[in-house]
Amino acid sequence: MKVSQLFTKTSKTSPADEVSRNAQLLIRAGYVYKVMAGVYAYTPLGLRVLENIKQIVREEMNSIGGQEIIMTSLQRKETWEGTGRWDDNKVDVWFKSKLKDDTEVGLAWSHEEAIMEMMQQFIKSYKDLPTSVYQFQTKLRNELRAKSGIMRGREFVMKDMYSLHATKEDMDAYYNKVIQVYQRCYERFGIGDSTFVTFASGGAFTKFSHEFQTICDAGEDILYVNEEQTVAVNEEVLDDATTELGIEKSTLAPTKSAEVGNIFKFGTEKSEQMGITFTDSDGANKPIYLASYGIGITRVMGVIVEKFADEKGIVWPESIAPAKIYLVSIGKQGSEAADALYAELTSKGVDVLYDDRDARPGEKFADGELMGIPYTLTVSDRLIEAGAFELKHRSNNTSAEILTRDELFASIVTS
Amino acid sequence: MKVSQLFTKTSKTSPADEVSRNAQLLIRAGYVYKVMAGVYAYTPLGLRVLENIKQIVREEMNSIGGQEIIMTSLQRKETWEGTGRWDDNKVDVWFKSKLKDDTEVGLAWSHEEAIMEMMQQFIKSYKDLPTSVYQFQTKLRNELRAKSGIMRGREFVMKDMYSLHATKEDMDAYYNKVIQVYQRCYERFGIGDSTFVTFASGGAFTKFSHEFQTICDAGEDILYVNEEQTVAVNEEVLDDATTELGIEKSTLAPTKSAEVGNIFKFGTEKSEQMGITFTDSDGANKPIYLASYGIGITRVMGVIVEKFADEKGIVWPESIAPAKIYLVSIGKQGSEAADALYAELTSKGVDVLYDDRDARPGEKFADGELMGIPYTLTVSDRLIEAGAFELKHRSNNTSAEILTRDELFASIVTS
Repeated sequence: MKVSQLFTKTSKTSPADEVSRNAQLLIRAGYVYKVMAGVYAYTPLGLRVLENIKQIVREEMNSIGGQEIIMTSLQRKETWEGTGRWDDNKVDVWFKSKLKDDTEVGLAWSHEEAIMEMMQQFIKSYKDLPTSVYQFQTKLRNELRAKSGIMRGREFVMKDMYSLHATKEDMDAYYNKVIQVYQRCYERFGIGDSTFVTFASGGAFTKFSHEFQTICDAGEDILYVNEEQTVAVNEEVLDDATTELGIEKSTLAPTKSAEVGNIFKFGTEKSEQMGITFTDSDGANKPIYLASYGIGITRVMGVIVEKFADEKGIVWPESIAPAKIYLVSIGKQGSEAADALYAELTSKGVDVLYDDRDARPGEKFADGELMGIPYTLTVSDRLIEAGAFELKHRSNNTSAEILTRDELFASIVTS
Repeated sequence: MKVSQLFTKTSKTSPADEVSRNAQLLIRAGYVYKVMAGVYAYTPLGLRVLENIKQIVREEMNSIGGQEIIMTSLQRKETWEGTGRWDDNKVDVWFKSKLKDDTEVGLAWSHEEAIMEMMQQFIKSYKDLPTSVYQFQTKLRNELRAKSGIMRGREFVMKDMYSLHATKEDMDAYYNKVIQVYQRCYERFGIGDSTFVTFASGGAFTKFSHEFQTICDAGEDILYVNEEQTVAVNEEVLDDATTELGIEKSTLAPTKSAEVGNIFKFGTEKSEQMGITFTDSDGANKPIYLASYGIGITRVMGVIVEKFADEKGIVWPESIAPAKIYLVSIGKQGSEAADALYAELTSKGVDVLYDDRDARPGEKFADGELMGIPYTLTVSDRLIEAGAFELKHRSNNTSAEILTRDELFASIVTS
């Protein structure tokens, strides 16, 4: 990708009504475009980050047999009436509209009921269980306020997975596997060290659900973590959880955190409400066990911006960055050498964002830093004379390295 | 992919209210699930086909500098008021809803105005032009009737691209390039021979637009094509086009066809309505030239089903099929050999749908045919004794080939 060809431009300002730091930076760096409060479009750079996050999640869900599907935004009233969740007094984030014949339709804020309604068509017998399906879906939620940028939008992308089981034991075992692959996702996103499996509020079937909480000053939650970081509890269930687990509250210290995932055992509650059963090996009709697993894809992107950004701008972990290298050319010779280097690195599969603009070096460096690309690679007339390249890492404050061509390739092509 | 692990099942029937052949077959074969009329979810098999179509389009749009983005479903009333298209009397397919504070919002049926509103923030000078952006987006259209399955849905996926230019000449040149890459798309989908660039109705700026029409009995359009297949005209503009082009109407023969793409030059009309200008090299403010280019991704999938299906079911072109090989095991030895073959072919990058179920051979063959997988590969006790494999092509009526292992691999791994 060449910066001169990107239609987006960096900006020193963001919309006056944009109060969240993640959206301010993402707008300034040209990753998102604000359509209205809580509603953002994703530009070529932003879409790359989203797709990188999705691909990590996809690989991990596939690794435990998740089958990718895509449900719909338009939903039937009848789908939600059985569980009482069509009612605006029970679910206060519905966007609703009407067909031409005045039939009410809902715009999907969730797909739990919709997926179960579909699955009941396919699951007849215990032989059809267990099964697990997931999607990356745009969710629409009519939030009263939307001031957290892409961390909590009125329109956002979520990975939601649903596993269906014949027995509680089978559901519990799969649920524990999901915890492990979720942890792998956060590790791969670059936030593994600061993300905790957290006890959070449960429901009719289970006393606690689990959240994945990332320590982050911009988070809306308070997380209580013990010193060894083996137990984490959301403040909302602090009393219950410490009692249940037999932990001294004083051993847990509070810290601000952002939820980056939530998993939940419905047990047979949803199936009973919706009348969804299977025929077990003993011939009896039984309700299906259900658990659901969500990761807000756009939310994760926002949390990562909040967590790592510094005074110069965004800092992406390499695994989700839109490019690995921000290539800066300085001078005429530098420009020719950079053209060749860009072609060579690209052919070797290195994602390079090449700032080929006729602009001041300082402007180029500042833009690469604002965009948060992991490495800035400089090719200048002066360096070429010395047979050298300058490579600087975005996320640490070590000074730039001066490398020979071989050192450069060894460093960035193989790593 | 193993058939035993797919949660979908084939079925001998489709919903009673489903009148379109494409949706009937796609539902029976387990590619889509009907949520309501004109609204379909895509199961693992269906999603694969969609993604294959999208990837072909993506590669072709990228090849002419298209930049992929993703806009939003929620749209502002103000975005559409400038061109008069918020009015339900002018656009009769809007789904609309309201924010909590009673602000009206629209659910995107199109993104022309939304994209232009975004682009005006980035395009200031002639140096920022030309540029071209596209997305794969869910469109919601409140159609009065929805009886064509996935060929015309209330919710569907479209690739829409928009190119912006400083001059008419530049727009025209790019428009012609798009015609070429569109033709490449249809060739790669396997419908190149029967798809025609067609004169269709234009607008304020241009007498004609261009459609891409595929000859297909299920199509809603009538196409007039000359014998050499060098000219095609939509019936709706037959008189105008023949007059304009100086063609004898009698040299064109009518045939039923389905629109699979539409491209359109807005010229400066949209920019003038919306007040979107750029500063030209002479310092003057001028309106931007715009052209737009659509391919209905789900629609293309439906048209291909309609066009190629036979009495046994769907027939996918290999380029978009969810798998290349439908692997059928028969008998105990056959099953062990098929397990090994599945692992080996998969490791060589061949997409195999492995029917590993404990089912009658006839049921397996029928399902593979209903699903439309290009090749059925059979491994049976009897064949193993002969050191042979049976390979049958789905789309032609030639009988099955009996191949040695080397012949099999030469045939399917390299082709």
